[in-house]
Amino acid sequence: MGQLSEDMTVTRQICEAIKDQIRRGVHGPGARLPSTRALAAEWGVSRTTVTAAYGQLIAEGYLETRQGARATVVQGLGLDVPKLREVPAPVTVRLSSYGQRVLDLPIPSPPLPGRLIADFRYGDVAAADFPTLAWRKAISAAILRRPARLGYGDPAGSLELRAALQGYLWRARGLRCDPDQIVIVNGSQQGLDLCARLLLDPGDRVLVENPCYGLARQTFSAVGAVPIPVDVDGEGMRTDGLGDARLAYVTPSHQFPLGGVMSAARRRELLSWARRSGAYVIEDDYDSEYRYDIAPIPALQALDGAETVLYLGTVSKTLSPTLRLGYLVVPPGLRDAFVSAKRLSDRHSPALEQDALADLIVSGAYERHVRSARRRNRERRAVLLASLSKTFGDDVAVVGADAGLHVVAWLNRVPKEREDELLARAAAGLGLYPVSPLYDPAVPASHPGIVGLVMGYASLGEREIEQGVERLASVLDVLAQSNSLKLDVSRERVRSHSGSNARGRREGNDQRSRQWTDDADR
Amino acid sequence: MGQLSEDMTVTRQICEAIKDQIRRGVHGPGARLPSTRALAAEWGVSRTTVTAAYGQLIAEGYLETRQGARATVVQGLGLDVPKLREVPAPVTVRLSSYGQRVLDLPIPSPPLPGRLIADFRYGDVAAADFPTLAWRKAISAAILRRPARLGYGDPAGSLELRAALQGYLWRARGLRCDPDQIVIVNGSQQGLDLCARLLLDPGDRVLVENPCYGLARQTFSAVGAVPIPVDVDGEGMRTDGLGDARLAYVTPSHQFPLGGVMSAARRRELLSWARRSGAYVIEDDYDSEYRYDIAPIPALQALDGAETVLYLGTVSKTLSPTLRLGYLVVPPGLRDAFVSAKRLSDRHSPALEQDALADLIVSGAYERHVRSARRRNRERRAVLLASLSKTFGDDVAVVGADAGLHVVAWLNRVPKEREDELLARAAAGLGLYPVSPLYDPAVPASHPGIVGLVMGYASLGEREIEQGVERLASVLDVLAQSNSLKLDVSRERVRSHSGSNARGRREGNDQRSRQWTDDADR
Repeated sequence: MGQLSEDMTVTRQICEAIKDQIRRGVHGPGARLPSTRALAAEWGVSRTTVTAAYGQLIAEGYLETRQGARATVVQGLGLDVPKLREVPAPVTVRLSSYGQRVLDLPIPSPPLPGRLIADFRYGDVAAADFPTLAWRKAISAAILRRPARLGYGDPAGSLELRAALQGYLWRARGLRCDPDQIVIVNGSQQGLDLCARLLLDPGDRVLVENPCYGLARQTFSAVGAVPIPVDVDGEGMRTDGLGDARLAYVTPSHQFPLGGVMSAARRRELLSWARRSGAYVIEDDYDSEYRYDIAPIPALQALDGAETVLYLGTVSKTLSPTLRLGYLVVPPGLRDAFVSAKRLSDRHSPALEQDALADLIVSGAYERHVRSARRRNRERRAVLLASLSKTFGDDVAVVGADAGLHVVAWLNRVPKEREDELLARAAAGLGLYPVSPLYDPAVPASHPGIVGLVMGYASLGEREIEQGVERLASVLDVLAQSNSLKLDVSRERVRSHSGSNARGRREGNDQRSRQWTDDADR
Repeated sequence: MGQLSEDMTVTRQICEAIKDQIRRGVHGPGARLPSTRALAAEWGVSRTTVTAAYGQLIAEGYLETRQGARATVVQGLGLDVPKLREVPAPVTVRLSSYGQRVLDLPIPSPPLPGRLIADFRYGDVAAADFPTLAWRKAISAAILRRPARLGYGDPAGSLELRAALQGYLWRARGLRCDPDQIVIVNGSQQGLDLCARLLLDPGDRVLVENPCYGLARQTFSAVGAVPIPVDVDGEGMRTDGLGDARLAYVTPSHQFPLGGVMSAARRRELLSWARRSGAYVIEDDYDSEYRYDIAPIPALQALDGAETVLYLGTVSKTLSPTLRLGYLVVPPGLRDAFVSAKRLSDRHSPALEQDALADLIVSGAYERHVRSARRRNRERRAVLLASLSKTFGDDVAVVGADAGLHVVAWLNRVPKEREDELLARAAAGLGLYPVSPLYDPAVPASHPGIVGLVMGYASLGEREIEQGVERLASVLDVLAQSNSLKLDVSRERVRSHSGSNARGRREGNDQRSRQWTDDADR
């Protein structure tokens, strides 16, 4: 049989060819097929191979053979098969109501090509910051450590990783939990999806910040829930007059995208609201490792008695979004439902990566890495803030800079109406991401009315950041020429960026149109 | 700040201690806290650290300080916080209807410990069969190949892997598709879950084989659909009199668990039914790489015009279930919905593993590995079949042996009523998995009435297999003593396995009870 396996490709080709001939009527019902000798000669293969092919077709019920006689096409077969083809394809795609809702969502597109001067896309991190050697070492060790039997793992995640995270979360976030409250997920997105599936029925109300992380709003809408926008300010989501809802989704450590830190008073009000109204609270702690001027604010979960808060963490910002590793800390009463749902979703997260991350945390390498990544990003942030201030002065107001991996830059003198024009002109050389799509379109008044840009810096070099800001200045300058805008931008700065625009513009538009499908990303 | 990061743990501990004191009323509203000097002495830390902690508590709104004066507890805070604690935890857990359904499902449990004589658990593979060096090499190469920016990938999966799979599926399965029809998923379970979410609404009927892969039935039930059992025989699922349904779930290459191969005639009938009734068909091709006596039967998808069949493949059986890598091939009309749903589920599958698998397929290493794994499993299978036949003769009827990584052994002389007793007696030394839980309990008549065992062999050594069968014989022998069963088992074979039973029995029962929660697994 080993030999046959080697010849499988040829055998398969012969089988497929004969089946096609049968379907096209070359061999009608009962027709005798060529002798193995003849067919072997025709294909230039051994008779053994042809005999194997005939045997295969007999096994599949296409051919039959009688005592020594040549193989013949079975009756009725030749007529049936073409009929299949005649049946027209179903005109309508039949989807569940969930399927119909997700079909309305944008399909994401690849990130912008590297030839841009600077891509301020939020959510990307620099490969240079990734602890490549440590990760390779940990993965190799994990592969060699595998037990003799490779079987399915614990759907909640490996106990080693959950125990390591318990310690890390207490040290880094003041968060106390039992390893059994932790469920390892494929990045925070799977955590959000599990929360939406397990906690929300169609029609349920869920409070979301406005502006809000777009994929969160999409995830809640996809399960049929109704996102209710709640205004945010410098202290995060406003907690006065919270309405009835099953769930609230917040980013208290660093509101996405505006960067406010939720105050202690509002944290208490939010938790009291949750208890009063029997609602749960999702605390998305997506980038709390990056805090530059004071130590991290303890997690909302630490204020709560593990009754209403579901804490969501990820290594996408500390290691890499390509790893797809995150973790949920859920109230004990919800644990079984989340473990069971995780099992039905995909059995468990990949085992080698879980082992590698546990190694890094236990050895202390993870927290050392977080500290050095924090230092590097503090430097990038300083360069961005300095360039923006030097270049634009009061024309640009920066918010949310004391934490995270992005800032929001409000262009005080560019009305929202000119956003599309700005992006079109910038697209040639810059990846720019406006904050406007993150606002709930149903509440237009909540948007300040001037262009705001979400500027991520974690994947950029310092020179890239400076050149990117210079290019932004030149774009705003051109924009100013084209109408009454008065921007204090000297011709000086844009000198270096003439030429290559025709090419750039064309690609730019294409890039921009692709970018628009990605507004929801973080 | 770098210094502060280093001291974060101590700072955090001081903050938490003070907050606990505030909550317990040790420091009431407006109370002055100890001087930094006093607290520094009390904790044996620098005043800088205490000052940082106070600064943190001021930032969080717990303390306030006036010009030079000592920090005081803010008004109202001390009273509010304890209130939080007084509010009782919600007595009822509030879940969505999906959450309530998954809560009723069994939570899986860890695999049996290695000290068993033999664990015939299906779905595990031998670590010795895993191409460790090739995988480590491919993963390392993938890590080093990463682009400068680490960002989110294509939710459908990397184009390299989808292109590599397109070629592999044509060579190995006679399956023609466009890379855009392929969606990379975290093992076949995520593929099943996506199909259930996107194609089924609560109350929809879905045809499943009886007996059937348990997790598939659970996945459909979890979304509120109604699984309709359809009898199977040696030709797989019966296609006469298929009722109305939105979806049919089949394992045509090797029916799970009974191992029948769906005949060409039934494949055509199933596809005609799907077209007539506007239903989709999920083809779960979970172990088709393992076929020992003839080449693989081409995929059902290859007969279909990519209109109704969703093809589901996995590397769990060829490489390892711990990797969580699988793939869906969907009709073009369904592609956008699946890509969008995969994105909302977890953005995309881990990038490094996708790159490594693409490398292995493109280099030919994957198919070489599949051939050698097929050879090794053919040997294991031969040993199992020989031992069963030599040991039990006609007392055991084996089915489904010509393909896959398991057989079903029917114990002709052991009535189903004695199944629990058999498992209890065997549990001390054997991992045995009855086929009975895979039958729909609503159709008791469909079960033959004698004990059938699903015997997986892919993770066992040849000696383990032989010793496992010998132990099974000894267990059946003991069972026979305990009542009228006449089993032709000589005392000879069981000699070597006396002793260690008291210990074994105790663990065994524990192991068995844990196993029962895992009936649905494959």
